[in-house]
Amino acid sequence: MYRLHYYPGNANLAPHMLMEEMGVEYELVYVDRNAGAHKQAAYLTLNPSGRIPVLEDGGMVIAETAAICLHLADRHIETKMAPDISTPERAKFYQWLMFLTNTVQTEFLVYYYSDRYSTDPEHAAAIKDAAEARLIGYFRIIEEQLAKKGPYMMGPAISLLDFYLLMLCRWGRFFTQKPGDMPNLGQHIGNMVLRPSVIRAFEQEGLEPPFA
Amino acid sequence: MYRLHYYPGNANLAPHMLMEEMGVEYELVYVDRNAGAHKQAAYLTLNPSGRIPVLEDGGMVIAETAAICLHLADRHIETKMAPDISTPERAKFYQWLMFLTNTVQTEFLVYYYSDRYSTDPEHAAAIKDAAEARLIGYFRIIEEQLAKKGPYMMGPAISLLDFYLLMLCRWGRFFTQKPGDMPNLGQHIGNMVLRPSVIRAFEQEGLEPPFA
Ligand SMILES: N[C@@H](CCC(=O)N[C@@H](CS)C(=O)NCC(=O)O)C(=O)O
Ligand SMILES: N[C@@H](CCC(=O)N[C@@H](CS)C(=O)NCC(=O)O)C(=O)O
Repeated sequence: MYRLHYYPGNANLAPHMLMEEMGVEYELVYVDRNAGAHKQAAYLTLNPSGRIPVLEDGGMVIAETAAICLHLADRHIETKMAPDISTPERAKFYQWLMFLTNTVQTEFLVYYYSDRYSTDPEHAAAIKDAAEARLIGYFRIIEEQLAKKGPYMMGPAISLLDFYLLMLCRWGRFFTQKPGDMPNLGQHIGNMVLRPSVIRAFEQEGLEPPFA
Repeated sequence: MYRLHYYPGNANLAPHMLMEEMGVEYELVYVDRNAGAHKQAAYLTLNPSGRIPVLEDGGMVIAETAAICLHLADRHIETKMAPDISTPERAKFYQWLMFLTNTVQTEFLVYYYSDRYSTDPEHAAAIKDAAEARLIGYFRIIEEQLAKKGPYMMGPAISLLDFYLLMLCRWGRFFTQKPGDMPNLGQHIGNMVLRPSVIRAFEQEGLEPPFA
């Protein structure tokens, strides 16, 4: 049985939706972020970087959202949440997964924690604005990919990338130009939020509309 | 034959060292960064995010350093640059690869391009200082991993993570507290730079000491 350490709406949302989609058994473990539990010894033993989420898989402990998703896909190949190893599709899939984790998701850290990004906290607003502008550019790159190769990130078939993307779109729901206003991304979100797996994960985390 | 689009010392260094280590045939394609070639149409067709490197593998085009490295490891399993699929080691390997790409490498973008991170360019110095402080913390996490589980990132056996790490340590060679001054990282770098594959890649990119 898997155990996913989570806080509502945090990066756990991607592997959470994914496990619902795969139909595997798991348990949610609440991390008391407001009490700083993710920066205390017990949690740091699980993940030395003090970030949410972490997945326990038997005696194994895995941090990093993208790693957790890839691991789940590899463990349950029959659910086809990632293309087969050593195919050209797998290489492209790796490319998009890396882009989502290192470019889009990490930029959201700058956006949400902009006060950490300078030694002078007064710079936070200008840093947040610059992050939002860059994020909009990154969503445009994804919008173009969907326009050319959609409806899903990997084309005709859904993969874990689509759940990951939905989570990231949700984080941008208060932008002046939100991802969901771009036509293909809007359609993607509209499709995704109708999936029973997504509805269940949102409900379990207590997330309310607007979803993205 | 592989074709790696590169600029000396850029993120191409990791897959470059890796291909040397694997003994595969490849060609280097110089990207004229100083003329902004990576932001022009021809390059953007290869990689819409305008970042270096890109790998061509026959008709296939792959961007994102970590994706390129994973793809190479999957294509040449016999070189054992990544643990086998569906093993606990593979999951941990994914975790560290994600940490290197989304946390350490991306933070170097903040460090090296700090003027992009605020709408007010005067904030750049304070942003760079904060990035350096975070990076030192990230290298400490890796230092601890090496202390507990070294000498390589995955323990006794070298993997693509070690080449990736060497590249990142090199980028930090001018820090006030440089990664190479931490004992286990210092030893790791010292071992890595003696490898013929590393020596050849550094030479081909025209990189001079200090290497890290
Ligand atoms: N690279 C990590 C980043 C995860 C992350 O930043 N999680 C956020 C919540 S969405 C967090 O833990 N923030 C707490 C903090 O940084 O203090 C991953 O992909 O899992
Ligand atoms: N996520 C990309 C980032 C690559 C990257 O940022 N490359 C740098 C050179 S090391 C670059 O292209 N910089 C040019 C720019 O951002 O304008 C990857 O991992 O490949």
